Amino acid sequence: MNFTERLGDRLLSNTRSDRVRDVAALTRRSIRSKRALFRAEGPQNVRETLRLALSDTPPPGLPGLDAVYVTEAELERHPDIAADLEALAERGGVFIRAVTAEVLAAMTDAVTPQGMLAVCSLPTLTLDLALARAELACVLVRVQDPGNAGTVVRAADAAGARAAVFTSGSVDPFNPKAVRSSAGSLFHVPVVTGAELAEIAVAARQHGLGILAADGYADILVDELADAALLRSAGVEPFAHTPYELSRPTAWLFGNEAQGLTDEEKAHADCAVAVPLYGAAESLNVGTAATVCLYASARAQRRAHP
Amino acid sequence: MNFTERLGDRLLSNTRSDRVRDVAALTRRSIRSKRALFRAEGPQNVRETLRLALSDTPPPGLPGLDAVYVTEAELERHPDIAADLEALAERGGVFIRAVTAEVLAAMTDAVTPQGMLAVCSLPTLTLDLALARAELACVLVRVQDPGNAGTVVRAADAAGARAAVFTSGSVDPFNPKAVRSSAGSLFHVPVVTGAELAEIAVAARQHGLGILAADGYADILVDELADAALLRSAGVEPFAHTPYELSRPTAWLFGNEAQGLTDEEKAHADCAVAVPLYGAAESLNVGTAATVCLYASARAQRRAHP
Repeated sequence: MNFTERLGDRLLSNTRSDRVRDVAALTRRSIRSKRALFRAEGPQNVRETLRLALSDTPPPGLPGLDAVYVTEAELERHPDIAADLEALAERGGVFIRAVTAEVLAAMTDAVTPQGMLAVCSLPTLTLDLALARAELACVLVRVQDPGNAGTVVRAADAAGARAAVFTSGSVDPFNPKAVRSSAGSLFHVPVVTGAELAEIAVAARQHGLGILAADGYADILVDELADAALLRSAGVEPFAHTPYELSRPTAWLFGNEAQGLTDEEKAHADCAVAVPLYGAAESLNVGTAATVCLYASARAQRRAHP
Repeated sequence: MNFTERLGDRLLSNTRSDRVRDVAALTRRSIRSKRALFRAEGPQNVRETLRLALSDTPPPGLPGLDAVYVTEAELERHPDIAADLEALAERGGVFIRAVTAEVLAAMTDAVTPQGMLAVCSLPTLTLDLALARAELACVLVRVQDPGNAGTVVRAADAAGARAAVFTSGSVDPFNPKAVRSSAGSLFHVPVVTGAELAEIAVAARQHGLGILAADGYADILVDELADAALLRSAGVEPFAHTPYELSRPTAWLFGNEAQGLTDEEKAHADCAVAVPLYGAAESLNVGTAATVCLYASARAQRRAHP
């Protein structure tokens, strides 16, 4: 009897059990925050939480793993996940169960449930520790859309940022929809929520980070900073003076989708920087703007300290 | 009696009328294609379609405007749109009606209807004409998610691309969800659908465009091409030879979300190029990858031909 069959022997099929209700309740922010748990859905998220749980030296500030629920059909589609689950089952400490498709559907608010989900513990990293370890950080200021929150965490991960901070007025990045769109990156990038921008700015400066505000109306373009940084790294003096050295450790501020950053919020930054709009688009979405800005910093930093 | 009041005098309130059914039917691709119409929802899309319809010299290859439906409450929230609608009503040729919130909800498949929508005619530009006018183009190869399609069109617009081409196996960018996530950019960037990649490649080369394939596994990084192009524009010989001059007119190929581009598809390109992953993310979403690649081309082109 292989692992999947053994798991199938204790199939959860009661959609009205307390366990199902408890997992479903994690859709609500108040419940997540009270229980310090969140739901990570789909193979990509489950794969990453398993890798992290199996790691002998997990980096600090990432979520823990509490339980995994999976349909047998989905497990057969992902042999790598089945292997990791089996290794974890041998090690113990995590509740693992096969469930029916109906139970899985009852556990989530997704329109199309993905066949597996994990219940994870919220990371407990402090703002101070997160910023102490980050050469590149992104700060989401009053961002409202969960899809955007997840996309920015994924972009931050790709660009190698080591902290994603959400201010107190922002959407919760552990909201199930945000977790789905982060595509596993919440298990790579330390995330801090509920901080005030003023305290974020103080902590960033204490740890030697400069602060840049992404602002569509700014006079300085991120391209100018990027070009100057590249030319300097090639030993060429840039054409014009630029007010910020992009190879510095940096925390980027990104504002609310509709309003951007207020003047008061921008005042915390060393300077405000725009992503150029070469076409007729009125604005970029926050995921796109964050990608351009974080990648520009990542490149400049890597050239200066390869 | 002002324009909004006059409009309110002929309020459409019957959710079961043929007109409502006709607009709702545009959710289906077969109906859109049969009638050559699509639905553009929300103030951002309606604003852009009105601007285009009021333009004395509309660029070719963009959608036409057939009808606008709006709730009185939403119109009051957007005085700029009300003014444009009034100008358009005076000019004639477009069917404009105030509707109840219930009628608007019955016309769309959106979970949260946005209070106004337009019915537009699909653009009729040929692949050949679209590529003849483009220094920068993006080609979506078998992209499946409507949100991604819209996000890429918006990123293409921001980067100043003049054509967005969707291969025959792709999601329809005029799908209501794709239109919503394009945030008005379908009224800026000429879009061509249903072309085969082989014919796209032939047309691109005929019009002097080079072809780059975005591929997460490629050896060449888009950063290397971008750095070399900048250094050349500054009169510095780049550190290493690069196989493609990024300031060239270029069509970028982006593949299916799960599988990327096949070897056969990549064979159409001059070279395959990766967006570097500096962190632990396994991949970028196609919107993020397209942003990095299209912006890199746009910058290089603008530096070479300011």
